[in-house]
Amino acid sequence: MFPFSYPADDRWLLPEGIEELLPEEAERLELLRRRVLDRFAAWGYRLVMPPLIEFIDSLLTGAGHDLDIQTFKLIDQASGRLLGIRADMTPQVARIDARTHAGDMPGRFCYLGSVLHTQADRLEKSRSPIQFGAELYGHGGVASDLEVIRLMLEVLATAGVERVHLDLGHVGIFRGLARQAGLTETQEGELFSLLQQKARPELTAAIAGMGMAPSLACMFTELVDLNGRHGVLERARRCLAEADAAVHLALEELASLAERLGCHSPELPINFDLAELRGYRYQTGVVFAAFVPGYGREIARGGRYDDIGKVFGRARPATGFSADLKVILRLSALGESFSGNGNAIFAPAAGEPGLAAAIRELRDAGQTVVEALPGQPGDAATHGFRNELRCDGGRWRVHPISSNDA
Amino acid sequence: MFPFSYPADDRWLLPEGIEELLPEEAERLELLRRRVLDRFAAWGYRLVMPPLIEFIDSLLTGAGHDLDIQTFKLIDQASGRLLGIRADMTPQVARIDARTHAGDMPGRFCYLGSVLHTQADRLEKSRSPIQFGAELYGHGGVASDLEVIRLMLEVLATAGVERVHLDLGHVGIFRGLARQAGLTETQEGELFSLLQQKARPELTAAIAGMGMAPSLACMFTELVDLNGRHGVLERARRCLAEADAAVHLALEELASLAERLGCHSPELPINFDLAELRGYRYQTGVVFAAFVPGYGREIARGGRYDDIGKVFGRARPATGFSADLKVILRLSALGESFSGNGNAIFAPAAGEPGLAAAIRELRDAGQTVVEALPGQPGDAATHGFRNELRCDGGRWRVHPISSNDA
Repeated sequence: MFPFSYPADDRWLLPEGIEELLPEEAERLELLRRRVLDRFAAWGYRLVMPPLIEFIDSLLTGAGHDLDIQTFKLIDQASGRLLGIRADMTPQVARIDARTHAGDMPGRFCYLGSVLHTQADRLEKSRSPIQFGAELYGHGGVASDLEVIRLMLEVLATAGVERVHLDLGHVGIFRGLARQAGLTETQEGELFSLLQQKARPELTAAIAGMGMAPSLACMFTELVDLNGRHGVLERARRCLAEADAAVHLALEELASLAERLGCHSPELPINFDLAELRGYRYQTGVVFAAFVPGYGREIARGGRYDDIGKVFGRARPATGFSADLKVILRLSALGESFSGNGNAIFAPAAGEPGLAAAIRELRDAGQTVVEALPGQPGDAATHGFRNELRCDGGRWRVHPISSNDA
Repeated sequence: MFPFSYPADDRWLLPEGIEELLPEEAERLELLRRRVLDRFAAWGYRLVMPPLIEFIDSLLTGAGHDLDIQTFKLIDQASGRLLGIRADMTPQVARIDARTHAGDMPGRFCYLGSVLHTQADRLEKSRSPIQFGAELYGHGGVASDLEVIRLMLEVLATAGVERVHLDLGHVGIFRGLARQAGLTETQEGELFSLLQQKARPELTAAIAGMGMAPSLACMFTELVDLNGRHGVLERARRCLAEADAAVHLALEELASLAERLGCHSPELPINFDLAELRGYRYQTGVVFAAFVPGYGREIARGGRYDDIGKVFGRARPATGFSADLKVILRLSALGESFSGNGNAIFAPAAGEPGLAAAIRELRDAGQTVVEALPGQPGDAATHGFRNELRCDGGRWRVHPISSNDA
């Protein structure tokens, strides 16, 4: 109805990377929020709302250095202790599972809320994502990885994101090779970085300098090329034939997962990338990410991170995914918003007989009715309304406003 | 389905007054959230999502000292400037109206989000309310106050809050008398405090010390008693007969508002309190609050604050209300939550023919279906489910689980 936008000289009003959503965007986001949460609920994922701020030691327990740097710190005047604003909700949900979930049955949780980062993301330029995700605790097999990937795909589809393709990897492959080669933590870290950059010459040089057996050196080098849509797992079985059982177990998990995903979503393009180690530090098994054409990074990501609850007193298997609802909003093909404001009905100022009841009935039926205020300048058309409530022979009816009225 | 609660020794995990919502509460809150936002949308109030943090000078521009103390401060590493976590969203929405809304037409906005306070509220013990509210800009008459009060009442009813009664006051009465008496700011502040405490002897002594005309002294003293359900405005007209026109205008506004509220909500108990000056510092006209029996403070409050947008470059009339969704959650008589998780259906592990389609259909129809995971111990009944999906002669159907199965 009304166009909302800021004057160009107003950008100073908000810190870099901190956005606010004006009505058009906010109302579309609210629709997506509901669709996402409804899908989670339909799969039995229970909603939790972790706090915005926590003691820094709870918030960063078990988390890496990256998260520490990304976390805004502040002093709690009530306790004198250091607080942090959450930069990632995943560890919060892990704590909830570890501390509240009794028994051995699987725990399914979902969440959606604002997080803040001290440093802007390079692609999005944002420091205030709206993170949402789902976590499945208590089951260690491929079936639970499959469940969260299927859920992620269904949630993205429900949110109007089209042409999704999936990247699949498994941190157990690199980790198994590193163990087999007896690498030190520093060596493992070095190879990890070079693999992430797919820096082949540097990788070859580094491997040569570590003095490992030729077959192992060869397997590490091959990892860079073990990616693509078809035949990757077959090639991996051959190239990594001399790897330990852990590596082959990881390969079999990936194969089983891909096959079952293929049954559920025959049209889904799957790309394998055995050198992809997103979230390597805390992930322990399958890792995955969703991509769409034209967006230069994953739009949702997840994987297995079996020990996440340990620091809170209860280690159990865990797998899940997360995404930023603001990114999904921009990529969503859904045009609607949760309110019917674009078709709002303009009603005369209160007072005429039967008017209040007519307005109430329309609103209860999900329509938006805006009441005129006495002395308000202009009529419905000049205010941008396309419909108005008028009395016809004693009955209130909604009439379209013809362009002649404008 | 599952009971979620923290072990008693876990309270140290979160800072005082910072709560997190576990599934039962979170899901009920989500239902309330949707009901509230849907009502706002039905009345044409456009949703905005202001940022969680802002530069402290934007956040506190025009705000009082109280809000400053309640605001958590932190340093923005990107700009080196001081940021604040929002403690009140009302000024943020005022800025949005002032900076984005072109033309003279009324602006209707609503919002809902977390705010944080440095100090816990005495009654709620909380430092993390979920504030929601609606604001109507651009109209200065009683009709807009009436609209926001009706909206507040309808939103509370929709949220399942019963037996609401309303307090009505008008800061123009005290302010008019103060101007008439030529009080200094300090004197006005002193009388304001004593009136709020309804400290009659101290008030009489203070008034005597200010050397004002006997008729004015008498009118100030009378204010303490000008409250109650019936006849208050009549008494006020007599007691304040010698007051300036501004005071009588305020009384007429109150009378007109009360009469029109009576037409809309004949059953609504209205209590007048002419010494009630909630938010006196920024409010300029009618002030109101909603109460329910058994809760020792207002559950929603609002009023007119005509100059709020001025510091952002655009002063126009404004009236609105706000409340804490967590308080409303506790008072709500609604038993449901947004998800049907209490009636979740347990489905066998994936793989059998037709199962995936049957699950999909149930989920699309709004049901919650939880899929078993291979190796999961126990059956549907031991996991607390009351319904399960079973195959009967080739067709998948939902069956209640009899207590014998448990």
